Amino acid sequence: MPPPPTSALSSSSSLYLFPLSSYSSPKKTQLGFCPSFPFTRLTNFTPSRRLMTCSAVSIEKETLISHRPHSFLRETDGLDDGSVRSRFQHMIMEVQDSVCGALEAVDGAGKFKEDAWTRPGGGGGISRVLQDGDVFEKAGVNISVVYGVMPPEAYRVAKANVTDQKPGPVPFFAAGISSVLHPKNPFAPTLHFNYRYFETDAPKDAPGAPRQWWFGGGTDLTPSYIFEEDVKHFHSIQKKACDKFDPSFYPRFKKWCDDYFYIKHRDERRGLGGIFFDDLNDYDQEMLLSFATECANSVVPAYVPIVEKRKNTPFTESHKAWQQLRRGRYIEFNLVYDRGTTFGLKTGGRIESILVSLPLTARWEYDHKPEGGSEEGKLLDACMNPKEWI
Amino acid sequence: MPPPPTSALSSSSSLYLFPLSSYSSPKKTQLGFCPSFPFTRLTNFTPSRRLMTCSAVSIEKETLISHRPHSFLRETDGLDDGSVRSRFQHMIMEVQDSVCGALEAVDGAGKFKEDAWTRPGGGGGISRVLQDGDVFEKAGVNISVVYGVMPPEAYRVAKANVTDQKPGPVPFFAAGISSVLHPKNPFAPTLHFNYRYFETDAPKDAPGAPRQWWFGGGTDLTPSYIFEEDVKHFHSIQKKACDKFDPSFYPRFKKWCDDYFYIKHRDERRGLGGIFFDDLNDYDQEMLLSFATECANSVVPAYVPIVEKRKNTPFTESHKAWQQLRRGRYIEFNLVYDRGTTFGLKTGGRIESILVSLPLTARWEYDHKPEGGSEEGKLLDACMNPKEWI
Repeated sequence: MPPPPTSALSSSSSLYLFPLSSYSSPKKTQLGFCPSFPFTRLTNFTPSRRLMTCSAVSIEKETLISHRPHSFLRETDGLDDGSVRSRFQHMIMEVQDSVCGALEAVDGAGKFKEDAWTRPGGGGGISRVLQDGDVFEKAGVNISVVYGVMPPEAYRVAKANVTDQKPGPVPFFAAGISSVLHPKNPFAPTLHFNYRYFETDAPKDAPGAPRQWWFGGGTDLTPSYIFEEDVKHFHSIQKKACDKFDPSFYPRFKKWCDDYFYIKHRDERRGLGGIFFDDLNDYDQEMLLSFATECANSVVPAYVPIVEKRKNTPFTESHKAWQQLRRGRYIEFNLVYDRGTTFGLKTGGRIESILVSLPLTARWEYDHKPEGGSEEGKLLDACMNPKEWI
Repeated sequence: MPPPPTSALSSSSSLYLFPLSSYSSPKKTQLGFCPSFPFTRLTNFTPSRRLMTCSAVSIEKETLISHRPHSFLRETDGLDDGSVRSRFQHMIMEVQDSVCGALEAVDGAGKFKEDAWTRPGGGGGISRVLQDGDVFEKAGVNISVVYGVMPPEAYRVAKANVTDQKPGPVPFFAAGISSVLHPKNPFAPTLHFNYRYFETDAPKDAPGAPRQWWFGGGTDLTPSYIFEEDVKHFHSIQKKACDKFDPSFYPRFKKWCDDYFYIKHRDERRGLGGIFFDDLNDYDQEMLLSFATECANSVVPAYVPIVEKRKNTPFTESHKAWQQLRRGRYIEFNLVYDRGTTFGLKTGGRIESILVSLPLTARWEYDHKPEGGSEEGKLLDACMNPKEWI
């Protein structure tokens, strides 16, 4: 069975490196374990598979490049060799293009600015940000590819049946797409999505040992006001994507999403959920690649019709102020709880790529309480008591 | 010697319970140690004295009361018995009154709203918040008094020479004042101050063992634009307060302040510093009580003349946007690094009192970089490279 949603190693809404989310937060540090971590190559995060609890990591400085490359894969990996890593990279690049294209069309005025970078140890990333458009306050769509090395202990525990090996450091590969979209109109919801793939090589000293791999991701909606038809539409598209592969996926990943995006100190969810999964590997690998692809391709049909419908809805200052308060909650979640964000900040990731997930503007009022029957109160209630929307 | 400023147990800019700052952050959790923590009374935080590293704590729910009491001390403590705890409580109540009075006078329009509460186990607090005044966007001035129990291990280690005792849980007392003031005008700086006193009883089973006590606190300035005369004035007042007691205080506490208010992922300080100290007990207790009182009484003369001078300075949208970006940094520090805030959030403190330290509004732009020679660039440089102002 996949790990429970409450796993310390669930995932993230960071816009930074997708795979950070799969890794244990520095809070789980077990001292005495980390110093043996042989960061021989890319040392920018700690892979976990709920096994590794080391935070004594640092990040290789990225190098900005002037043109996006065709691929961030190492040459030794082959570029279009049909491997899962190659096809996953291809998929996230295509999704980045298609999502950005659709958003520019919705916005009408704003254009994405692109920053691409590589890292000396292999891999790289492309950040695309549209800021202060006609429709979007801030929209970030990032992809990244990472080569790294994980400590042998992690791999050993992962494969408890491989006991006779004396493995060395385990090279790994990780790739993902991550995005947060904040529209200006308070009736148009914020969207977050993130899909990622992780794969280890066999340990150096145990060439016959099997590879590990898993998928993670999700898409979730954070409105300031509830339009039931919008939320139903959004969840229906998620369910449709899930049902194509397994009828258990939607209910399970819907609950996982509600559990993950939880602002504990408020006893509120960040928004109205969607789907979320992590460490998924107990299905056919091809099936999961198709599933992740289906989910990522569902972002545009799930979100764009909603933002099209709401982007020009007239609103008052009071609507805007409520949206700003909810943006504050978004920030509280991302800075305090989100594992990708907090881990990225602590390990020295590319700050601008990590924090592009934060809205352009936000607001904190002392002791603000919406009235019981108000539209604001209804949203708050739905954040405190997750509902079945379909 | 007092602990070094880089101590994991330095302190906090939380507006919540002053003493949280003296306690280890949950990140320092040593599992297996905490379960023995006998929270027989008030269980709202973990006292540390850089010894206790337990986060398995929860907070007793506070009860709002309609009128502020004359004292939060237990009757068994006596009210005006001349004890340090009694005089410290008296001092912070007076300072809360005098600071709030001075701020209302500066603002002209805004009035503080007061919330008072008690806790079943003893102690309580008074939050005062002025929001959306003519001059202040948000100003919070809180006091709190806490009775709690700390694990015997902590006390034992603190008094390493008391080895023949078998101490039980150690009751402690803590009281403090904490404040963050965010003006509207981008040329008027944000101010934070916080003064606190901590005291243990003798352990139950070792009645002859000595009491522990210490003081902590500080006052620091966070402008968006540098007016050298303002920063010099502010630091001069801090130095004057320090110099009355010990010529080593200002340089030491100035550096401690620069070290504490450090936003690691930005390599920036939150602002232009001031003074900061914690765990201070290796001076005469009466002297330190006078010192803390002097510092707290210096808040108004250090800050009010600056905000008076800048509150009506004309500004442009661009000045305001820069202030909002700096407000974003303030939030990053408080939510990610400040020990009082992060600990308060994780242990279930009174959220509104904790987060009143956040500004009313803030802003995050992707990859914003002020121009080199600009006023904005100068501020950023001073945050990255702390200066000697006097």
